[in-house]
Amino acid sequence: MDKAAEMQKLCEKDRAEKLAIVKEETEHIKAKKEEFGLESLDAIRDQMPRLTPYMDKGITYAHKDFQIIAKAIEHNEPWAVVSGINPSGPLHLGHLALFKENRALQELGAEIFFPVSEDESYVFEKAQSLAAARENAYLHVIPSLVALGFDPKKTHIFVGSDYPSIYPFALHIARNFSLNHIKGVFGFDDDTNAGVIFYMGGIQMAHILLPQLEEFGGPKPTVVPVGIDQHPYIQISRRFARRAQMIPPAELDMRFLPSLAAPGAKMSASDRSSCIYVTDSVDEAKQKIKTAYTGGSPLMKYQKEFGAVPEVCSICSLLEYHFLDREHALDIKNSCRQGTMMCKDCKKMAMDGVEQLLITHQEAMGGAREIQDQFMLNKPIRSIVEARR
Amino acid sequence: MDKAAEMQKLCEKDRAEKLAIVKEETEHIKAKKEEFGLESLDAIRDQMPRLTPYMDKGITYAHKDFQIIAKAIEHNEPWAVVSGINPSGPLHLGHLALFKENRALQELGAEIFFPVSEDESYVFEKAQSLAAARENAYLHVIPSLVALGFDPKKTHIFVGSDYPSIYPFALHIARNFSLNHIKGVFGFDDDTNAGVIFYMGGIQMAHILLPQLEEFGGPKPTVVPVGIDQHPYIQISRRFARRAQMIPPAELDMRFLPSLAAPGAKMSASDRSSCIYVTDSVDEAKQKIKTAYTGGSPLMKYQKEFGAVPEVCSICSLLEYHFLDREHALDIKNSCRQGTMMCKDCKKMAMDGVEQLLITHQEAMGGAREIQDQFMLNKPIRSIVEARR
Repeated sequence: MDKAAEMQKLCEKDRAEKLAIVKEETEHIKAKKEEFGLESLDAIRDQMPRLTPYMDKGITYAHKDFQIIAKAIEHNEPWAVVSGINPSGPLHLGHLALFKENRALQELGAEIFFPVSEDESYVFEKAQSLAAARENAYLHVIPSLVALGFDPKKTHIFVGSDYPSIYPFALHIARNFSLNHIKGVFGFDDDTNAGVIFYMGGIQMAHILLPQLEEFGGPKPTVVPVGIDQHPYIQISRRFARRAQMIPPAELDMRFLPSLAAPGAKMSASDRSSCIYVTDSVDEAKQKIKTAYTGGSPLMKYQKEFGAVPEVCSICSLLEYHFLDREHALDIKNSCRQGTMMCKDCKKMAMDGVEQLLITHQEAMGGAREIQDQFMLNKPIRSIVEARR
Repeated sequence: MDKAAEMQKLCEKDRAEKLAIVKEETEHIKAKKEEFGLESLDAIRDQMPRLTPYMDKGITYAHKDFQIIAKAIEHNEPWAVVSGINPSGPLHLGHLALFKENRALQELGAEIFFPVSEDESYVFEKAQSLAAARENAYLHVIPSLVALGFDPKKTHIFVGSDYPSIYPFALHIARNFSLNHIKGVFGFDDDTNAGVIFYMGGIQMAHILLPQLEEFGGPKPTVVPVGIDQHPYIQISRRFARRAQMIPPAELDMRFLPSLAAPGAKMSASDRSSCIYVTDSVDEAKQKIKTAYTGGSPLMKYQKEFGAVPEVCSICSLLEYHFLDREHALDIKNSCRQGTMMCKDCKKMAMDGVEQLLITHQEAMGGAREIQDQFMLNKPIRSIVEARR
């Protein structure tokens, strides 16, 4: 076999692998949607005054019970979003995408609760101490959130241990679930530490149901943006909500921003090469983009002839999540598939966008630190310990 | 068999049963002492400036590591007592006995922490709601404690949910124990609710180790008065203390005041006939004493000839715990054994004592409610969430 034929073979194999990854992910999501009884967003499209950009682009793609939110929006009634953040490491552009979706939900009327759960980081041994995770929460996570321009009147941020009022509520919830139940829902075994049991079997549900306590106006439609594999967290909260005469929280399923380093994974703060941190220098970020995994072919000639696979491309996702609207993203994907747009073009676009984003965001974080106190939740929870139920 | 012989037989059987109960209890305690490696108090007798009355009478009869407390007393160094109270029902004279032992320990120099754990009552389903148990805590438990004359400068009372600072500390502890470990120590299975797991695997240990936090002066000898079957609670706390560079807490084992209704059981707030509540009227209390289970015989003639069994007698214990010093208690037990003192004599003495006690205590509770705020602990715990360990 001559050199050219060998390369051709290699390119075919590479392309087949990429298509297989796309197929596998599509099937995983389809299977989970069926298993969990989730619906696509198409059905509620007509009920909404407008979609969020991520809904529009299909990054937010499925839901459970989002009708109750659409209805609240339609009737201008109060509704809430709860979006937990695990402050175990620095933030990256994947986190920022989630925050942007939350901000878009706030523009539709949501009151937003952000539990920054350093207690979660700690019990899952992602943080060495509560203190280390707390420091990260206050120095990095919260300023990044605030930098995105949330409305301080409708945004409540709290760090787990610094809002201990949540714990009696969590204990109240945990009392209602047997170990059997919790182990089954989350797949824990007896090696799991008791802190994790209480976090998942109490604290996390308390976060999700917090907006429905008397202190915050009582039962109201609430939605939690999650990755599809987190569905069980919502499911068990819905169960408790029914018992407590609250409204079972809705779920909004998002695709997370993929890893720059490998296909089929998402950006992860614990893997430097997988992600661009919001604190990266422009040079560091550009370097990561330069070496990022794409949907392109090892051979430019082959790519021009057969096109690339944008669905598996980390750069295509980066552009779509942060820098392009729906139409532009579709155009680029089409050009990519047709082999008329090459990886270097997309990488150039991504570098320019990320440079701008980092500069703007890092500057905004400085200002955010000055005002973040306005966003912190400190209303004590009394209704649980005082209610005779 | 004639009537008299039949009665004789009945009395013999009754006496044999009573002696068997005493034997069984003695053996249970002996076996537990060996199993848990507890020591009798004789060894530390010489180290102490004086014993508490309950130690003197043998009501407090065994310990683990109490040497560290004796040494602190000897050198006039700080030491602490932690004595949890489950406020699931009204208080009775058994609780009061425990409080008296605590007061005697305070007279020897202890700083005392009283966790009034309505969260425990709730997760163990002894209380219908946190609120009901909280109300009982503030209206009955705490005034009863305060009425006994503790020193407000050295006494810290808190109700679980109203001192939420404890929970991040509890979570920090719980993270260190696997479910396996907790289930093994406490004998839980997968039907146990997740609140119980967190209470026993976190909160209770946090109570026991609280006096050793920086906020309260750092590591110090601490002792917990318990019933011998509660030894595992102390044992697991000792384990965590070692890991956290704290001093493993000592244990003081007490016999609890027996039930008035049946031999071999202790007074229980959930069984009205077993106990005299501190809120009982004098008439109610006298009625309970009148029908109380004693060490006497069904036949007075038999009792005069063979004597009675004071070790199994609820009235004898009531007298010994609340109204007699060591010498008097010994005298009465001797007279009882010799058949020279009859049950009605002891019951009369108990009625007089209880009448006086109830009148005095109920009056003191009124005054205690006025000043109980001085005893409430509200110092926030920061050292756990701020320490980098």
